[in-house]
Amino acid sequence: MRTASVLDLLKRKQLDALLISSPKHITYLTSYGGFSQTERDAFLLITKKKSYLFSNSLLRNEVKQKIEKIEVIEHTRGHPFAKNLAEIVKKEKIERIGFESDNVTVTEYLTLTENISSPFISTDLSSLRVIKQKQEIEHIRMACTIAKKAYSLTLRKIKPGVSEKEVASIFEINLLKLGASLSFPTIVAFGKNAAIPHHHIDDTTLKTNDLILMDFGAKYNNYCSDMTRTFTQGTPPREQLKAIDVVKMSQDLAVKYIENTLKEKKDISASEVDDIARDYIIEKDFPSIPHSLGHGIGIEVHEAPSLSPNSTDTLVEGMVFSIEPGIYINGKFGVRVEDLYTIQSGKLVKLSN
Amino acid sequence: MRTASVLDLLKRKQLDALLISSPKHITYLTSYGGFSQTERDAFLLITKKKSYLFSNSLLRNEVKQKIEKIEVIEHTRGHPFAKNLAEIVKKEKIERIGFESDNVTVTEYLTLTENISSPFISTDLSSLRVIKQKQEIEHIRMACTIAKKAYSLTLRKIKPGVSEKEVASIFEINLLKLGASLSFPTIVAFGKNAAIPHHHIDDTTLKTNDLILMDFGAKYNNYCSDMTRTFTQGTPPREQLKAIDVVKMSQDLAVKYIENTLKEKKDISASEVDDIARDYIIEKDFPSIPHSLGHGIGIEVHEAPSLSPNSTDTLVEGMVFSIEPGIYINGKFGVRVEDLYTIQSGKLVKLSN
Repeated sequence: MRTASVLDLLKRKQLDALLISSPKHITYLTSYGGFSQTERDAFLLITKKKSYLFSNSLLRNEVKQKIEKIEVIEHTRGHPFAKNLAEIVKKEKIERIGFESDNVTVTEYLTLTENISSPFISTDLSSLRVIKQKQEIEHIRMACTIAKKAYSLTLRKIKPGVSEKEVASIFEINLLKLGASLSFPTIVAFGKNAAIPHHHIDDTTLKTNDLILMDFGAKYNNYCSDMTRTFTQGTPPREQLKAIDVVKMSQDLAVKYIENTLKEKKDISASEVDDIARDYIIEKDFPSIPHSLGHGIGIEVHEAPSLSPNSTDTLVEGMVFSIEPGIYINGKFGVRVEDLYTIQSGKLVKLSN
Repeated sequence: MRTASVLDLLKRKQLDALLISSPKHITYLTSYGGFSQTERDAFLLITKKKSYLFSNSLLRNEVKQKIEKIEVIEHTRGHPFAKNLAEIVKKEKIERIGFESDNVTVTEYLTLTENISSPFISTDLSSLRVIKQKQEIEHIRMACTIAKKAYSLTLRKIKPGVSEKEVASIFEINLLKLGASLSFPTIVAFGKNAAIPHHHIDDTTLKTNDLILMDFGAKYNNYCSDMTRTFTQGTPPREQLKAIDVVKMSQDLAVKYIENTLKEKKDISASEVDDIARDYIIEKDFPSIPHSLGHGIGIEVHEAPSLSPNSTDTLVEGMVFSIEPGIYINGKFGVRVEDLYTIQSGKLVKLSN
């Protein structure tokens, strides 16, 4: 159990306990990755004294074995979760309970408040995982290495006539063979399909002069990687080659800005980093990036911090984030280049190297 | 757009519009499968007159191309979703809005009610997808066929010394090669690991006389399959072989009960089906099944109906569900057999055949 940050939060927010419901946060705190991402199969309660995991009969024995220093309480139809929680609240005399209002559903909230009279306090956990420990960064680095290897192996199989679905499948098979799993469904977009930033792979086949956009990631020890490459095997129109150069330069400028600001030991505003990359693309007569310049990554593909025009985040030691400028011309083509970076010992380090 | 069932619901519940937030329901209604399952990237509003999809800049162009008969409204920081919805509510004079209280978060609900004064009515959509059309059943049948093929190819590679992770990876690679994707992380459990119904694969290696449990599924055209097999390559203790026989007979008894009840043209109570399979296992001196006998399946691996002791569901034409009795002896072994069935033309049809 990795409870230090939560115990600190309890103190700062004057809470007696924190009820954690997001499976990603529960995985972070318990180091156990077997929770369903789409069905609610566990709640974690951390009090000042101890930790409780409320789960069902399917997970009970596994979590007992695999999570240290936790009391596992099984919910059943006769003893549903809210009743079990009510008993602990009474036993431990818990008054103020923090909860994730951006994760708990309206139905769950009504059931909780029907069973428990202590106040539930909306608590923002979005920055709980934002500063990574060394080992977490090493997992992400390994996820990057595996994904790059799988990507290199895939490149050999790309030739005119192959379909997006085929390329995605080849990449994903390579990834599994290398011992990782997918961090998200692989994006492969040929030609004008790449103008859609999150294009969903289909049966489109590659034409000789198409730009090829691949956005791919591996998951290793619960940690994700995320990279994008845009390339071609033919001779696309000059405008498209120019767009690739502009996007790469835009990424370089963001990187240089962070490096220089680190050297000057000043605060790095995430929105300023976004500005610098975005303004360069606009200056070169391409449309503004229709998404953020970058996002944090870890147990989730997208997590704090946010590198975007309205972000209030500051980039500091131990954060891991993407820098991914893009140019999208509807009906024609798309370009994106994405790499992952972290700040270690006061320096910007590229993890997808 | 597949709106008939929703329009019917609007009438029955006297609603002017239904706000749908579960990605699985949105995929069902729009036939588009590219929504994130873990991040909120779309809301669907169906009124008596038309349908609106609220989404972000990443999906905007793709959903416009791929979903028919829908107005796509993009949310941005300046025009967030709740404001966009408020405008439609005003324009269309919507008074009563149904919403999924078991999916919408507390934070989302507060934002909606701050921006919109019309009442939001909690609406249960759990049975929206419960009756499948022929084409949906064919997708599930194909997902079963692909998964069984990938499983057969995997069997050849299983021998003493292989690890659970290796077997899962071989299965998953086979599945991708056959053009499908995973419907859930493959479960492979050797020996005592199988006593945990949802064991998370690890580096445990196969011993000659271990029972091997594999629970696996494919996704094809957005539809899932789910099957479990328990087998051995050696000579396990007599008790374990007996458990396999008992589990198979338990499944047979449930199947026979449904078949006979269909012949008699009586209602099939899902809880009675569960009883019959469960009671047989207990009668043979094994512990009761620590999970439901079965679950509906479709776009989600687990959906309505539920075959469980407290279910109030009735099994009818067009439903697709699993029958999966199991015996789990902690620290020793586990057995589960799972197949998918549907009721078509008044007959029980096995889809995983």
